[in-house]
Amino acid sequence: MVEDMTTPLLSDSEAPSDALPVRLTGLTVAILGSGDFSRSLAVRLVASGVRVVVGSRCVNRIPSGLFPDGVELRNQEGALSQVCLVFMAMFPEHYCSLLGLQSALAGKVLVDVSNGAKVNIHGPSNAERLAELFPDSLVVKGFNTVSTWELQTGAHDGSRQVMICSNSTEGKKKVVQLARRMGFHPVDMGGLSAAREIEVAPLRLFPSWSGPVVVTFLLFLFFYGYGFLRGILLPYLAQGHNAFYRLAFDLVEESLPAVALVTLALVYLPGLFAAWLQLWRGTKYRRFPSWLDNWMQRRKQLGLLSFLCAALHGVYSLCLPLRRITVHRLVNTAYTQVKAGTEEPWDELGVWRSDLYLSCGVLGLGVLSLLAITSLPTVGNTLNWREFTFVQSGLGYIALTLSIMHTLFFGWDFAFHIEAYPFYMPPSYLLAVVLPCIVLVCRCFLLLPCIFTRLTRIRRGWESKHNCPVLQHHHVVPNGIP
Amino acid sequence: MVEDMTTPLLSDSEAPSDALPVRLTGLTVAILGSGDFSRSLAVRLVASGVRVVVGSRCVNRIPSGLFPDGVELRNQEGALSQVCLVFMAMFPEHYCSLLGLQSALAGKVLVDVSNGAKVNIHGPSNAERLAELFPDSLVVKGFNTVSTWELQTGAHDGSRQVMICSNSTEGKKKVVQLARRMGFHPVDMGGLSAAREIEVAPLRLFPSWSGPVVVTFLLFLFFYGYGFLRGILLPYLAQGHNAFYRLAFDLVEESLPAVALVTLALVYLPGLFAAWLQLWRGTKYRRFPSWLDNWMQRRKQLGLLSFLCAALHGVYSLCLPLRRITVHRLVNTAYTQVKAGTEEPWDELGVWRSDLYLSCGVLGLGVLSLLAITSLPTVGNTLNWREFTFVQSGLGYIALTLSIMHTLFFGWDFAFHIEAYPFYMPPSYLLAVVLPCIVLVCRCFLLLPCIFTRLTRIRRGWESKHNCPVLQHHHVVPNGIP
Amino acid sequence: MVEDMTTPLLSDSEAPSDALPVRLTGLTVAILGSGDFSRSLAVRLVASGVRVVVGSRCVNRIPSGLFPDGVELRNQEGALSQVCLVFMAMFPEHYCSLLGLQSALAGKVLVDVSNGAKVNIHGPSNAERLAELFPDSLVVKGFNTVSTWELQTGAHDGSRQVMICSNSTEGKKKVVQLARRMGFHPVDMGGLSAAREIEVAPLRLFPSWSGPVVVTFLLFLFFYGYGFLRGILLPYLAQGHNAFYRLAFDLVEESLPAVALVTLALVYLPGLFAAWLQLWRGTKYRRFPSWLDNWMQRRKQLGLLSFLCAALHGVYSLCLPLRRITVHRLVNTAYTQVKAGTEEPWDELGVWRSDLYLSCGVLGLGVLSLLAITSLPTVGNTLNWREFTFVQSGLGYIALTLSIMHTLFFGWDFAFHIEAYPFYMPPSYLLAVVLPCIVLVCRCFLLLPCIFTRLTRIRRGWESKHNCPVLQHHHVVPNGIP
Repeated sequence: MVEDMTTPLLSDSEAPSDALPVRLTGLTVAILGSGDFSRSLAVRLVASGVRVVVGSRCVNRIPSGLFPDGVELRNQEGALSQVCLVFMAMFPEHYCSLLGLQSALAGKVLVDVSNGAKVNIHGPSNAERLAELFPDSLVVKGFNTVSTWELQTGAHDGSRQVMICSNSTEGKKKVVQLARRMGFHPVDMGGLSAAREIEVAPLRLFPSWSGPVVVTFLLFLFFYGYGFLRGILLPYLAQGHNAFYRLAFDLVEESLPAVALVTLALVYLPGLFAAWLQLWRGTKYRRFPSWLDNWMQRRKQLGLLSFLCAALHGVYSLCLPLRRITVHRLVNTAYTQVKAGTEEPWDELGVWRSDLYLSCGVLGLGVLSLLAITSLPTVGNTLNWREFTFVQSGLGYIALTLSIMHTLFFGWDFAFHIEAYPFYMPPSYLLAVVLPCIVLVCRCFLLLPCIFTRLTRIRRGWESKHNCPVLQHHHVVPNGIP
Repeated sequence: MVEDMTTPLLSDSEAPSDALPVRLTGLTVAILGSGDFSRSLAVRLVASGVRVVVGSRCVNRIPSGLFPDGVELRNQEGALSQVCLVFMAMFPEHYCSLLGLQSALAGKVLVDVSNGAKVNIHGPSNAERLAELFPDSLVVKGFNTVSTWELQTGAHDGSRQVMICSNSTEGKKKVVQLARRMGFHPVDMGGLSAAREIEVAPLRLFPSWSGPVVVTFLLFLFFYGYGFLRGILLPYLAQGHNAFYRLAFDLVEESLPAVALVTLALVYLPGLFAAWLQLWRGTKYRRFPSWLDNWMQRRKQLGLLSFLCAALHGVYSLCLPLRRITVHRLVNTAYTQVKAGTEEPWDELGVWRSDLYLSCGVLGLGVLSLLAITSLPTVGNTLNWREFTFVQSGLGYIALTLSIMHTLFFGWDFAFHIEAYPFYMPPSYLLAVVLPCIVLVCRCFLLLPCIFTRLTRIRRGWESKHNCPVLQHHHVVPNGIP
Repeated sequence: MVEDMTTPLLSDSEAPSDALPVRLTGLTVAILGSGDFSRSLAVRLVASGVRVVVGSRCVNRIPSGLFPDGVELRNQEGALSQVCLVFMAMFPEHYCSLLGLQSALAGKVLVDVSNGAKVNIHGPSNAERLAELFPDSLVVKGFNTVSTWELQTGAHDGSRQVMICSNSTEGKKKVVQLARRMGFHPVDMGGLSAAREIEVAPLRLFPSWSGPVVVTFLLFLFFYGYGFLRGILLPYLAQGHNAFYRLAFDLVEESLPAVALVTLALVYLPGLFAAWLQLWRGTKYRRFPSWLDNWMQRRKQLGLLSFLCAALHGVYSLCLPLRRITVHRLVNTAYTQVKAGTEEPWDELGVWRSDLYLSCGVLGLGVLSLLAITSLPTVGNTLNWREFTFVQSGLGYIALTLSIMHTLFFGWDFAFHIEAYPFYMPPSYLLAVVLPCIVLVCRCFLLLPCIFTRLTRIRRGWESKHNCPVLQHHHVVPNGIP
């Protein structure tokens, strides 16, 4: 490369512009508009070796130094005269103010970088409206999903997908090449009718989180409401016992672990459904129903929400000794002992019980933390498939088991006392532990040798007889290989 | 690129070497020096398909296996004979030991990869000294910002910017191409006079953190000093009351939340200034004063420092029950109750108060944690603009509100007792809560419909009459569109 | 691309398909098999502009929509007819079922994407078996280290190394180009004999963690066993004192900080060995013994395990007030005071001691957290070398010092009482603090001016006389420069 760098052979290279200055001068794009996006776009284009002309309505008002060196500032007509690719870095409601430039824009590639105004809107997309206004131009939608911040940071640090669509193959091709040159990864989304989808993409608010958050919130409402009914409202109505002070702390502190436990079970439930479905169908080559597919794709979010609830539960529990009521109770217990004239008796069982449930809780939360850390993109990227499975499945079931033990040690023998069932309502931790236990038992069931072997074979591509009869005759399958 | 996109000239490719093996053999570079950097550079070059010759003063002493397979080891003269690009992987004080090679280096590209010795040094940079020593060579500065570790890891995992400068366009072009080939993102910093800037870049110690850290530290000093004066020194001088034991824990535990609260307010204050400035100017197209610009660019750091203080405050608070003094007080409270012969009375208001301020504190810290997590580069990269705004602005104000409520519930009615003002000095939490309250009120003020609408229009590009009068006549602006 | 790879037309371009549609049609690959990997591979190939034909045993059973638009589904023979590069996306035990296709596969590049079955297996690798079965095909190993998830996500987000090996230069070249086009970073591992290594790579389970985890676990076992012997078993045997309730919580809570402290010392010990070795040898150009090299490469893992133990210790400590036994002790202390008829006396020394060791512990853990955060790949990537050193070495030694102070304040003057040595066994925190103190003292020793200067010179490339005598005569070394 070094020796023949100046010979025509070297014409190839990621950055043709560097090799042949002739081309560099030929590569010029215009940006209409002088806002934040325009400036950031110019920074990135210049850094990628592209010449930039910014066309503005009032060039004089642009402070010097706003744009990087090498960017030419001109009025709109002047900017368009030299280029054949134009970024429309303006708000879509101003498009029609450009109608006078229709002829200057004819035959050029117009890149619509605008976002949609709302998610649930009808009518044509901005890009389609632009295409209507300038029927002689090649309108391409793209770059709107990239933020100004990502444009300004270095290519690889901020490199990400740029969704592009257009009805003009010619225009799309040029924008795809330009996007690659700028360090982005262009993704072809098809014709201009896809522009609506692309325009609202930056407006969506955590689409993959909405389901899991709603589920977690409903679970919290259920357990909070159940605890309120069982521990506050019914005792108040039946015995006039005022325990409303428990609303702010105790009820939250009791509901959070229940939510965490059920949510963690919901992470592992769809995997069991999937295994059962594969066993029953005798093949892995048929798609899961879409509800199961969706559920499986939300497991990471459910797991993180479970961790969030568990961590909050942990902090709430650690705050218990700081509460006014704890001090009050301690002092009064001491007072009662003194009045009774006896030391508090040594309760070895109680000591073991509290130590065990605390230990299980701490360890369970610790394992969940490891899971949460490996769900960070960069940490997860460094794992191979086996490590990922070990962490997400192995450690996950360990966390589930520890959490169940934490709950059971907490419940201990209280669960069998009649006082634990006022108004025939079991304590919420008993409700919460049912689903996790079922998940754990089913999982152990899948580890039985006969089932495990069959499932492993199915997952390695084996199919039971009633599937794919054609194959059985077609190929000569050697002995021992299914 | 756009114009001649369809012409055969564009036949250039990401990896020309693979296509034509002939060229591969032509691509050889030399590295002078056999230290860590030299070895790592050789690893990366070989992995990028470049032939490498290492020139060393004493070839025999280099252990076999130090360099990857395919690297040729020669003496310095021998190494230079075959190449036209040379990396100087040696300490700059050894440059003059190469004076004997002056003729062998003439006409070749010398890449200076050295770092500066100190930040605040005068005189020529290493690269400029090298250029003086070898006036017939093309000296290029670069690659010094890349660590040996980044050189050895895979291209894309460690890909990052490589700043390059040179007075020789020819030399710069070759190094830029080589850097791209090695998977880096070269950034042209101009002539060799920029070498000083590039050389000291690896010596800078968290330049974006120094301001926020100083501010946070001064705030801590202020609140610690104020607490010392009000709670320890003045009572000691006035009443001889010895409370110096509070220095190690209580004072720190009281100062941290005050610092966290004020710092969090400082995160959102510049945004309010900016909004007010835009409203007043009636346009967003004029730059903010530089102090405001700097402040806005430090918001992330201030926010993380606020989170750090809040988290430390949380841990300190949770440690309260572990203190010797807490046990002492509890036992003595019980003793006093017994002596008085009465149970401690039920203080429902106190229970609510402690539960509420603990809950607000836990939730506030939880929301701040989410903010801190999304400030991790990879997590933040996966968010679109609306999600980023929701987290950083929406969740941020929720955290601020919860923190203020935490403080106010903690203060409760004590704040209005005369005993809370010994020596006419209010408690430090009252001082700390003032600025956050102002920020919150101003923010709510900006949400008033008339102001909100105007601000939104300005941010979408609208400008008030006295700005840009030219535009108003120039374009026919249709009805309803400003 | 594959067909005309050797013709000049293809020489070029990151995305030839975009530039010349003619070429696009020429670039077609086949995938045999219709499993998850096949589907994900097809998604990525189509997104990279490659035409894909999937060959399946039973085409009819593949649900529509399983593969992305544009993928052609055919029977196996049909799929092979059009291409010269074939991905074998099937389990290796099915390879022999393709023997009938031997002639159809002759001369084509077969990419073996399979993983090995076990790490410690003997016999030929899957790729070598494939090469035996199809001697007329060009077998290339690769892509097995990439997960289906990484194939489906965008190129740059999931870009990572793809290890490739083959005995056919021709075949390897084509696969390397294809991998680059798909956004991966191909790494040439040599001939097909390297296939075993590549095949088991995805099976390895945290290879860099096993050593540190074993060390940490053994340390935990030692301290737990020592504590059991000293605090439970011997007192039980000697005095019949039953303290077995301490097994579940107290012993763990005591062992964790000891493990954390020793592990943290182990992080900094190899650096001291290395410095001492360099001082003794008078040069940095000789390699460290391999045990030291290995140890130094595991420092990050040791540090993170130390942080994990320290964090667990912190949470365990914070749980202390929640234990049943703590409440029991508090109430009984109050009871005893009342019986004695005196308030508990004010113990100022005890208050200072507990405040100081809590403060040191909290701050030490805080500093360790910062270290742990900067060990996240993306956070670490944003640091320059000096910042990295400051964090890892500077902050690390601060954390070590704070941890030692935490331990010493905890021990206070108890350590000198004869009661602290039952059965002549010192408390475990005394054992744990020995190594860290040695490390700290040695580190301070290295900061002595005479030693520090010599070490700095050695690290900048200076060598003592007995090394490299050749150099001394060869170059005219100017005054003042060693």
